[in-house]
Parts: sequence; structure tokens; C-alpha cells
Amino acid sequence: MDSKFNAYLEELGKLDYSKMYNNDFLHTWDKTTDELKAMYIVADALRNLRERNISTRIFESGLAVSNFRDNSTRTRFSFASGTNLLGLQQQDLDESKSQVAHGETVRETATMISFMADVIGIRDDKFIGEGDAYMKEVSESVEQSWRDGILDHRPTLVSLQSDSDHPTQSSADMLYLINEFGGLDKLRGKKVAVTWAYSPSYGKPLSCPQSLIMLLTRFGMDVTLAHPEGYDLMPDLVEQAGKYAKESGCSFRKTNSMAEAFEGADIVIPKSWAPYAAMEERTKLYAAGDSAGIDKLEQELLAQNATHMDWCCTPELMEKTANGKDTIYMHPLPADINGVSCEHGEVANEVFDYHRDGLYKEASYKPYAVASMIFLQKAKDPVATLRALEERGEARWYEA
Amino acid sequence: MDSKFNAYLEELGKLDYSKMYNNDFLHTWDKTTDELKAMYIVADALRNLRERNISTRIFESGLAVSNFRDNSTRTRFSFASGTNLLGLQQQDLDESKSQVAHGETVRETATMISFMADVIGIRDDKFIGEGDAYMKEVSESVEQSWRDGILDHRPTLVSLQSDSDHPTQSSADMLYLINEFGGLDKLRGKKVAVTWAYSPSYGKPLSCPQSLIMLLTRFGMDVTLAHPEGYDLMPDLVEQAGKYAKESGCSFRKTNSMAEAFEGADIVIPKSWAPYAAMEERTKLYAAGDSAGIDKLEQELLAQNATHMDWCCTPELMEKTANGKDTIYMHPLPADINGVSCEHGEVANEVFDYHRDGLYKEASYKPYAVASMIFLQKAKDPVATLRALEERGEARWYEA
Amino acid sequence: MDSKFNAYLEELGKLDYSKMYNNDFLHTWDKTTDELKAMYIVADALRNLRERNISTRIFESGLAVSNFRDNSTRTRFSFASGTNLLGLQQQDLDESKSQVAHGETVRETATMISFMADVIGIRDDKFIGEGDAYMKEVSESVEQSWRDGILDHRPTLVSLQSDSDHPTQSSADMLYLINEFGGLDKLRGKKVAVTWAYSPSYGKPLSCPQSLIMLLTRFGMDVTLAHPEGYDLMPDLVEQAGKYAKESGCSFRKTNSMAEAFEGADIVIPKSWAPYAAMEERTKLYAAGDSAGIDKLEQELLAQNATHMDWCCTPELMEKTANGKDTIYMHPLPADINGVSCEHGEVANEVFDYHRDGLYKEASYKPYAVASMIFLQKAKDPVATLRALEERGEARWYEA
Repeated sequence: MDSKFNAYLEELGKLDYSKMYNNDFLHTWDKTTDELKAMYIVADALRNLRERNISTRIFESGLAVSNFRDNSTRTRFSFASGTNLLGLQQQDLDESKSQVAHGETVRETATMISFMADVIGIRDDKFIGEGDAYMKEVSESVEQSWRDGILDHRPTLVSLQSDSDHPTQSSADMLYLINEFGGLDKLRGKKVAVTWAYSPSYGKPLSCPQSLIMLLTRFGMDVTLAHPEGYDLMPDLVEQAGKYAKESGCSFRKTNSMAEAFEGADIVIPKSWAPYAAMEERTKLYAAGDSAGIDKLEQELLAQNATHMDWCCTPELMEKTANGKDTIYMHPLPADINGVSCEHGEVANEVFDYHRDGLYKEASYKPYAVASMIFLQKAKDPVATLRALEERGEARWYEA
Repeated sequence: MDSKFNAYLEELGKLDYSKMYNNDFLHTWDKTTDELKAMYIVADALRNLRERNISTRIFESGLAVSNFRDNSTRTRFSFASGTNLLGLQQQDLDESKSQVAHGETVRETATMISFMADVIGIRDDKFIGEGDAYMKEVSESVEQSWRDGILDHRPTLVSLQSDSDHPTQSSADMLYLINEFGGLDKLRGKKVAVTWAYSPSYGKPLSCPQSLIMLLTRFGMDVTLAHPEGYDLMPDLVEQAGKYAKESGCSFRKTNSMAEAFEGADIVIPKSWAPYAAMEERTKLYAAGDSAGIDKLEQELLAQNATHMDWCCTPELMEKTANGKDTIYMHPLPADINGVSCEHGEVANEVFDYHRDGLYKEASYKPYAVASMIFLQKAKDPVATLRALEERGEARWYEA
Repeated sequence: MDSKFNAYLEELGKLDYSKMYNNDFLHTWDKTTDELKAMYIVADALRNLRERNISTRIFESGLAVSNFRDNSTRTRFSFASGTNLLGLQQQDLDESKSQVAHGETVRETATMISFMADVIGIRDDKFIGEGDAYMKEVSESVEQSWRDGILDHRPTLVSLQSDSDHPTQSSADMLYLINEFGGLDKLRGKKVAVTWAYSPSYGKPLSCPQSLIMLLTRFGMDVTLAHPEGYDLMPDLVEQAGKYAKESGCSFRKTNSMAEAFEGADIVIPKSWAPYAAMEERTKLYAAGDSAGIDKLEQELLAQNATHMDWCCTPELMEKTANGKDTIYMHPLPADINGVSCEHGEVANEVFDYHRDGLYKEASYKPYAVASMIFLQKAKDPVATLRALEERGEARWYEA
């Protein structure tokens, strides 16, 4: 037995995560700290097995249904990869090719796609309140159908980004940090700047920064949230992040200065997002079908954005951080890079390019985060199952 | 060995279904009664294995090609599920992304997608005569290519709905009834109302009611077909249903009164469809490219429909049936539900909601119907193969 | 052990193809003659195993990512089939559903889709220079990400057609000829006419004829390239084909007469393509966004084409060949057939129909060509791995 793998299993054995079995993964804040820790460990254990060419298939057959209500490359491939790693076949619910528009209820569609679905992954991040509501309804629907004896099992859900949270992204972020710093406990006391940055586009989701402040504070990191006035996140979540910080004995500060947030930071995560109030307004305008209003709002927001073009992650700003240009810079990608994807954006090309490998490594954890969430939802005894997989020792990639 | 499973195999051993091997499943009326019985038993046996977490993979690799020429959710997922259950990977032939429009013959496309296709599933239900003709041509094409030594095997076809028949749907319906009533023999003498119902949309396929009258009469059920004057089904099929009824010693009646059909019924299946004559006319108009004519026909049909808004499955009508509101109500879904998917539709919300679980269970058999059809087309000795699968005892979902 | 299979392995053991491991397959001319021979042998060996119902899965899990920047049926299904045969799950990168348009770099997208991708297949054949450049950039990107420790393996590339080469097609062509003539050595001295033919459409890629002249000359066939004046292929490739012919001691001639090329030919391969100069011009017009210019060019090219409607593979022309109507006629399909897919096209229906079976057999080798390329890129010791697969003897299609 591999010693690193063995250490994972030992650590895992000390945690209580029994409620994850047969449950969903919709928000990190639905989970206990033990459960999150278990999820990171299982992700690393699965990666360890794959890198040793040991198959981690726990399904001989079964579908992993995805429903992307917004474009996606990274998360789409992470879901396809993570589910394939466990033996499932991805099947996309393309609502435009289905009869969903036919007035069918969520409960009905959810049941119809679930007869042989072991997991359902959903991205629905466009409108405030809607993504979370939709996922909850799907979850309750399949739960109901399972209790009613229609489904012989309960397909579990994984959020692939809602309007409030992006758990597979922030979990990949955590896994990257854990592996970079050499352990979850090493993150305690690290200073992180979660900051807004300028983007020439409009209406970017709030879920990434929200997911981060809610997660980093739980593991004892000193988080500074920075954005221009008016670019608030959802107030409930900001309040809860403060509570998490208090509970874990770290700090959670807010500021309207990017420079202040960068000052002495060990990790910087600058990214654009839309003001919460504007997103609420947009949701109402869409509901009312007011396209003139939507256009007007878009113009206003772009104009407002344009007054904050100085919110860019430049080499000068990086100099203010704990380790200068070597300070960890993170982004969920794709970033708006000055002179590459746009004229002025979230980050200077020089900074992005210097951190490219780190950014890509950060992304490389997402398939494992997905697989880990599912694994914990599907394996009654994860320690025993992981051990059995190692003992089974089936080659993922067979070479004589 | 599981006693229920054993009973399935014993029953199966008494039937003659040898001609299903290496053959297609395009219409239920192409099949003998023994063959249909075998298909129901194998569906139940596969379900039994899956519910006992025993893998039913008979393919290590191989494609299941689908071609959906009309929208689909249920059947798309049933085909993906049923083929995945057997170990095949679904591959959709998206004609818009292919070179099919390039003037390529059906024979050529059919051969080109078949080099490693074990099964081909086709939905083509929009125009009278076309779906059946297309499937026949695909079948003959791959047969020819197999005989000519181009294909090393013969991919078999499964109809996922044509303009005349919807065999995977009506087979799911039969499986539901068999399991609800406790056996195929228990269905004999049951009174079934297959009736038209009002829908605010237009041009719904005839294949569902046709599939039902052709199937239920073969198994000794007393079928009443009800629709407003002018909403005839294909006359040949109606005539054949009468013959089937005679052969199996049951009755097949026609009426223009929904209430009459519901009177004393054990099972009611109200659903909208378009008049056969109008569908024939529409096919001609499309062929002639007469879009003004098509629009005019649509308006006429909608107006004609609107004179029959009283054809709705209401609580009052349900009271006329054998068991009142508890009488089995069936629908292939999605239904036009009053106040849910439309203002006035096929069924009152109260009735639909009361029968929701039954309706969803009905749908749950479709993946198994698909898998069973394919299994019988691919296993030379189904009894031995099913027994071997149980003995192999490989877990579908592995847990240590 | 099967004697034919054994012969393949013995032959394979004599060749040096070690550099194929962990490498790409972008052009046939990147490969040594030994490497190409190995690829043909492995394709035949995989086909031999499959036809004996022996599983050739070397992957328990893993993705095969495809990116089709142009329509495809044959190659799409060949890639899905060939990768499925090895155990991989195809995952299409649909750029329209991704965030690629978001200004993301090729390097980033390539890395993001590759965390669990074992192979990437790309079709990009529309614009001169672009397809090759894109594939090269993807290859270098994943190589870089692998070296930088971001990817735990190096996904290898297979070209599914660029603007210069169509290696899976020409490899299928070679496999067909090898199997028809009974061995690669039997092809030496055979006379092949690679000729242009009239098509009512415009802008067909040059990659098919280029791929052929570059390949056939390497294996000692006497190649005549025929096209109307002005329909030149890329000059570098034509020159290189001449060098190949010299090296292998055969002839490579050019002519502007279809009849001359057919004279005494053992194999004829008539197909339409666009003039190289016009394709270069078109690429520039697209780059400049000059849609009026593009329309004008299209009209000019169609008019130019129309002056060469006599370039059609007729029964009369076939009479000039070595074996008259029985001389091998090849085409990558779909062909423009007179009176079938168009009024006047590349080939008379009579000729096409007489050769239909051969044409379809030609196509049947493409999935094996794809699988063989990947196999050699993924198996360090292909002989040992093939032998082990035969010994493992797992059924692809399980029947008790």
C-alpha cells in the first residue's frame, strides 16, 4: 500500500461525514467542516490512485446527467471527467432538444431523466435566486420519486454553479491551496485578498467570490473582501462569512481599496462580478420581459464598470503582497487579460503569464472535486471502498 | 438464485422467440405473441438484476446510435439508459452536424454509422408514412451491407416512434399493467378506454393510440376506442385491432363518446392526436412546400380541436369508471394538464396529480423495454445469458 | 493463437516505431515508413481481434475529446468507434457551448479539456494554413502543460483532417488496398490515377488528394495526378510526392487530362477539390471580413468549375483502365453522383453503384485506422499488449 494513500485513509477514518451518503452537494455551507475535509481527502486519494494507474471505477454502468443552463468548458469537462473516472456515462439534458418547453413540470422532467441516473449535475447561474431554487426543486423531486417507489435509488445532485455558490470551483481552489501549502492545517493564518476586478463585460456571477469567502473563513484564513462601492455581494453570505471567521478565530475584513486588500497578502484572487442589487434588478426585468429596461441596465452597468478600470491585478499591486510577484494569484478562468482577451481587464498579461502554471494546476483539481463529491454520496463506507479499489488494482490504462 | 428471477427464466424457457435474434423491433405487430411475452419477461428480469445491483453488461464496447428526427426527453434518456445498461455507448447522429444533407443516400449513411454500431434507434414520427419508410430503408441498408461483407455484424434497429407505432412506449405501458395487476394473464377481460382528448396544440402523432389498440387487444383486454367524429386513426390498424380482438376472444368497440368509453373501465388512457386525414393532407402540403396551405390547415385543425374542449379527463368522468378515481389513468407524458401546462387540456390537474406516481412508474419501464428488445436481438440464448449474468454477479454499483 | 494474428505480431516485431509512443499523428509525412507499416498492421490486428469477438479495451476510463470545426459523419463516427473500441468515452468540445469565444487562448482551452483526456481528435480543414497551425498549437500546449507538471500524462493528438492532410482517410484507403491486393508489398508498381473531378459545389478541401499522393508514392505505386489547369495542389506537397516516388523507385506524373491518367490505371480516385490559389485568396478574404469578396470568389469558382463538367468518372473512362469496369474506384465519400446527389457530379451513377461495396469497405477501415494510431501512441510495447489482449480473451459481446 502506498504510504501517502494510507495516510489519506487514516485521516479520513477520523472524520464524521456519514450524512453525505445519498445526499446532494449544492453549497459548501450545507456541509460540516468534517464533511468538507473528507471531500478534500477523497479527492486527493482518487488522484493518487489515478496517478498510480489504478482504476477508480465504482460503476459498471449508470448515467451522469448534466444540465448546463449556461455555457461551460471547464466545468463541463470536469463533470464528464470526474463521472467517467467513476464509471458513469455523461448524458446531457439539452433542454432545446427535449420537450421541457412543452409545459412540463420540473418534478416530471427530473424523474424522467433519473431512472438510471446516479448523479445529476446542474449549472444554473444566470439569475439571482433561480439557480438555487431550481436545484432544490430537482433534488426534492427525485427524493419524492424515490420515496414513492418510482426510482429504485436516489440520484444525488452536484451543483455545477448556481447564482449563490460555485462549490466545485471553490473546492478545486481549496485543493490547490492544500497541495501547494502542504496540508489544510497550513492554511490557517494565511492572508487572502478576494477582490473585485474590472472587466469590459457585464453581469458576471457573484458565486465565485461568495463561494470563496464562505469557505476560506471556515479554515482559518484571514480574508479581506475588496470591491468598489456598490459592488456588494449577497448580504446574508457576507454576514455568514464574518461568523465563520469568528468561529475559526480568523479575520474577515471589508474594504473598498484593492491596494489595501493586497497589502501583505499570501494569496490574491481578483475577479470581476456584477453588483448584487443590479443583478436583482436584472432578474426582475427579465421576469417582466422588459428588454428595453435590460438594455438600459446593461449600458449603466458597463458605464459604472468603466469608472473602475484601475481595479486590475498589475505587477505594481503584486509588489504590495507578502511575496511580491511570487505570491499566489488565483482565478477560476477564463480571465480577462489585458492585451490578450481584451484591452483592459482583470489582470495584466505579465502577472497572468507568470502564474499560468499555478492557475492551470488550480483548475486540474476540479474533476477530482466532482468525483470526490459523488464518491462520498455513493460509497457507504468510503474508507473500505478506497482500500478495496487499491487492492483490486485494476489498471486504468492497460499496458503489457 | 433469486426465486422471482428463476420464475422469469422458467417462463421464458417455454416460449418461442428465436426469430428475434439478429432482427429489428419496429412494430409490435411484426412480433408474435410469444415474442412479445418474451420481451416483457426479459425486461422484468433485467430490472430484477439491476435492482439486485447485478451488472447486466453484455458489451465491453460498442455503439448505440440514435437518430432523433423529433424532440424527445423520455425516449432519449430511455435509449441512453437501456443501452448503457447493456454496456453500449450512445452516439447521436445529429443530422445538422453531419453531411447527410449533402445528398447522401440513406443506404450510405446507414452503413457509415454502423461499422461498430450494435444497435440503431430511430425516432421519425412527424409525417405519415415517412418514419416507417425511413426505418425500413435503414434496416434493409444495414442488412445488405452485412450480407455484402461490409459490416462484420448486423446492427439491429429499435423504433423509438414512427408515424404508425410507438413500440417502446406501449411496451412500457404493458409492463406497467403486468406489474400492477400481477401478471400478463390477469389483464384478460380488463376494460380499457383508449380515448382522444382535447389539446390546445395541433398535429400530435397517431402512434400512441394506434400502438395501444394493436397491443391491448392481443392480450385479451376489452378495448373501447373513443374520439370525436373525424379524428380517425389509420383505418388498416383499426381493422387489424378488431381482428386481434376476435382472435383473443375479447371486444374492440368504437364510439364517439368519451363518457361511454369511460363507463365501467378498469383503465383509461385519454390523449390527444391529430385526425389521420388531416395528417395525410399535411404530409402532402409539406412535400409540395405549400407553407400557406400548411398554415391554413393548422388554423382549421386548431379551430376543429376547439369544438371538442369537453373531451377532458375530469374527476366527473373518472367517477363513471370501474373504480372511480382509483381507476388506472395512463398517459405517455408530457400531458396537457388544465391550469398547469395550459388553460384547457387533456386532463384535470386533480386527476393528473392523483395519478402522478402511477404515471411516473409507467414511464420507468421504458428503459427496460428498450434494453429487453436489444437483449433479445443480441443474445442467441437469452435464458442462458441471463442465468450467466446472475452467476457472474458483478456489482453494477460497487461498494466495499 | 490465431495464425493470421500471429503473423501480424511477427511482422510488427521487425519494425521500428518506438517514436510513435506518446506522440501525435498529424500528417502521414511526419512518420517513417516503418511507422506507417506498423500502423497498418496494428489496425488489421485490432480488426482481427474484434472480428473474433475479443475485447481490445486498454482503458478502463478516460476521455477521447473531439473538436469538429467542420461537419462530419464518417470521421465523427470513426473517432467515436475507434476510441470506444479502446475503452475511451468520446466527449465533444462544442465550441459554441463553451467559453472559447470569451477570448481564451488555445493553450488554455487545450489544457482545460485535457486533465483526463487520453487523446484529442481535431478536424479543422476550412482555411489554408489554419488547421495545421491550430493542431500544432494544441499539441505544443498540452506538451507544455505535461512538462510543467499540470497534466499527469500527455494527451496525444490525431488529426481528423486539416487543410493539408487527411491521415485517417488516406490510412483507411491504404488499409483497403492492402487487404484487397493481399499485402502492402503487392501494391508496388500498381498504377493509380489521383484525379480531379467536377462538382457543382465549391471549396472542397485539398487534403484528400494531397494525402494520397504523399502516401501512395511512398509505397512504390505509380501515381498520376490529373487536374484541369489552375486546380493545383499545394506546391510543396506535390514536390515532396515527387521525391517520395524517386526514393521508392516509382513514378509520379502530372497531367491535365483525366483520360490520360485513367489509361491503364489499376486504381482510380477521382474527386473534386478547390484550386490552391483560390483557397489562399478565400482565407485572406475571410480574415479581412470581406464578404462581398467571398461571394464574388465563390461565383467565379463555380463558373470556373462549370467549364470542366467533362471531368466525370464515366463508364467510358473506366474502359480505358487496366481492368475496365472492374478496376478499383475509390472515393472518401460522400461523392457527388450524377442523377443521385446532383445533376452532374464527380461520378456516373452506374460506376458508383457498381463499386458501392468496395467504397463502403474502404470506409470501414477508418475506425481501425483511428484506433491503431491511438494504440501506438498509448502502448509502450504494442506487440506484448496485443498478445496480452488475445490471451485475456475477454468477450466484446458476451453471449452464454
